[in-house]
Amino acid sequence: MTYCLAIALQQGLVFASDTRTNAGIDHVSNYPKCHSFVWPGDRMLVLLSAGNLATTQALVKQLELDLEPPPEGQGNQVNLRSFAHLNQVAEYIGGTSTAVQQRHAGMAQSGVNFEASFILGGQIAGEPPGLYLIYPQGNYIGYPPEQPFLQIGETKYGKPILDRVVQPDMSLEDAARAALVSLDSTMRSNLSVGAPIDLMLYPADSLAEGRRLHLADDADYYRDLRERWAGGLLETFRGLPQFDWEGGP
Amino acid sequence: MTYCLAIALQQGLVFASDTRTNAGIDHVSNYPKCHSFVWPGDRMLVLLSAGNLATTQALVKQLELDLEPPPEGQGNQVNLRSFAHLNQVAEYIGGTSTAVQQRHAGMAQSGVNFEASFILGGQIAGEPPGLYLIYPQGNYIGYPPEQPFLQIGETKYGKPILDRVVQPDMSLEDAARAALVSLDSTMRSNLSVGAPIDLMLYPADSLAEGRRLHLADDADYYRDLRERWAGGLLETFRGLPQFDWEGGP
Repeated sequence: MTYCLAIALQQGLVFASDTRTNAGIDHVSNYPKCHSFVWPGDRMLVLLSAGNLATTQALVKQLELDLEPPPEGQGNQVNLRSFAHLNQVAEYIGGTSTAVQQRHAGMAQSGVNFEASFILGGQIAGEPPGLYLIYPQGNYIGYPPEQPFLQIGETKYGKPILDRVVQPDMSLEDAARAALVSLDSTMRSNLSVGAPIDLMLYPADSLAEGRRLHLADDADYYRDLRERWAGGLLETFRGLPQFDWEGGP
Repeated sequence: MTYCLAIALQQGLVFASDTRTNAGIDHVSNYPKCHSFVWPGDRMLVLLSAGNLATTQALVKQLELDLEPPPEGQGNQVNLRSFAHLNQVAEYIGGTSTAVQQRHAGMAQSGVNFEASFILGGQIAGEPPGLYLIYPQGNYIGYPPEQPFLQIGETKYGKPILDRVVQPDMSLEDAARAALVSLDSTMRSNLSVGAPIDLMLYPADSLAEGRRLHLADDADYYRDLRERWAGGLLETFRGLPQFDWEGGP
């Protein structure tokens, strides 16, 4: 399994993902699930992936191949640079994803699930930043304005903290901390999600790669954040009100 | 959906459940999901239920019918009082549950899922208290000693807080507060789980009903607990360490 999330803020976008992949309990690896495609000044696109690893790798490879110059005498292939609007990029990626899945669909009687989900985020010059969740079927949705985040993979463990703290007007750094806490809660409760964590902070209108962190389990900052979060939770828990029969303070 | 949990402690057992049931978004009701069967001094049994409402209601009714005196000339029906060990009660309930489901299985092509899961907890005189999770297939498991709790229904949202604070040597009251926070986190993130909350604290070896609370959303204690928890989380969040480029305290 996997857990990826993205948060949309007035100040920009935050992306976070774990790196653990597993095909059965004895086939556990680490792969990046956060792919960025940047043409400075023109567009910055980030793709987070969850689901069948062969599908997600084939999709990313196909997106790269589509960007190569066409053979002589042929017109340009449609690619990540072809579109003026982010939703059109989502449409293109959704279509490419279903095409990749269908290539292997003849083997579907094997019981393997070829499905994959994606979060596409970024900005194209002339547009505000945006986020889309792309379903395995190739269709896609934006984010809810009141709760401006999207999640894919093992989403439930880490949702309560996002529901409590994420606001459109928070800073990129605060949103990044919320994402790290959300990932930490998930990793503590579910072995199939694991560090290192990929984290990206994209300031709106910068149209560049943004700030990227790769945090191992023992990275000083991440360990410090985890310890303070755990300590604060315990302290809050110990300060919860007593039942009337306890007669304490 | 539903969310029920039970915690096993050195001091006894804690049970908690929401009361919302839904059969489609326009058929939402409240039913108790926490059923207790008490013979003071002999045994105290609690059954928490999740899944198909008709199945869970039919099961509870069947358990009650089995307790009635047999018609003249017939031997005693096996029932909740027949067994000296809690795992035998789990076996009996699991068998009764699968029998109830099979009664309606002929209609299974309708696409309805008749499955239900249960948590059975309690104590029989001469035994320590115990907890079992009974699967829809009728088989069952105990609780893991290091993380002495069991959950059924919509379990993921509320698991991180239990993973962090539940310890076998905590008080019944602390465990009850952990259960309330776990339920609150779930209800905030998932509309299908809702108050009022049924809460029961069973002191080990009391072999009696224990302390029972029925907490509506606006119950003073529950509201106070929620507010303090939310406030403490926010404060902890605001105190998380700054990234090195932020240059704050």
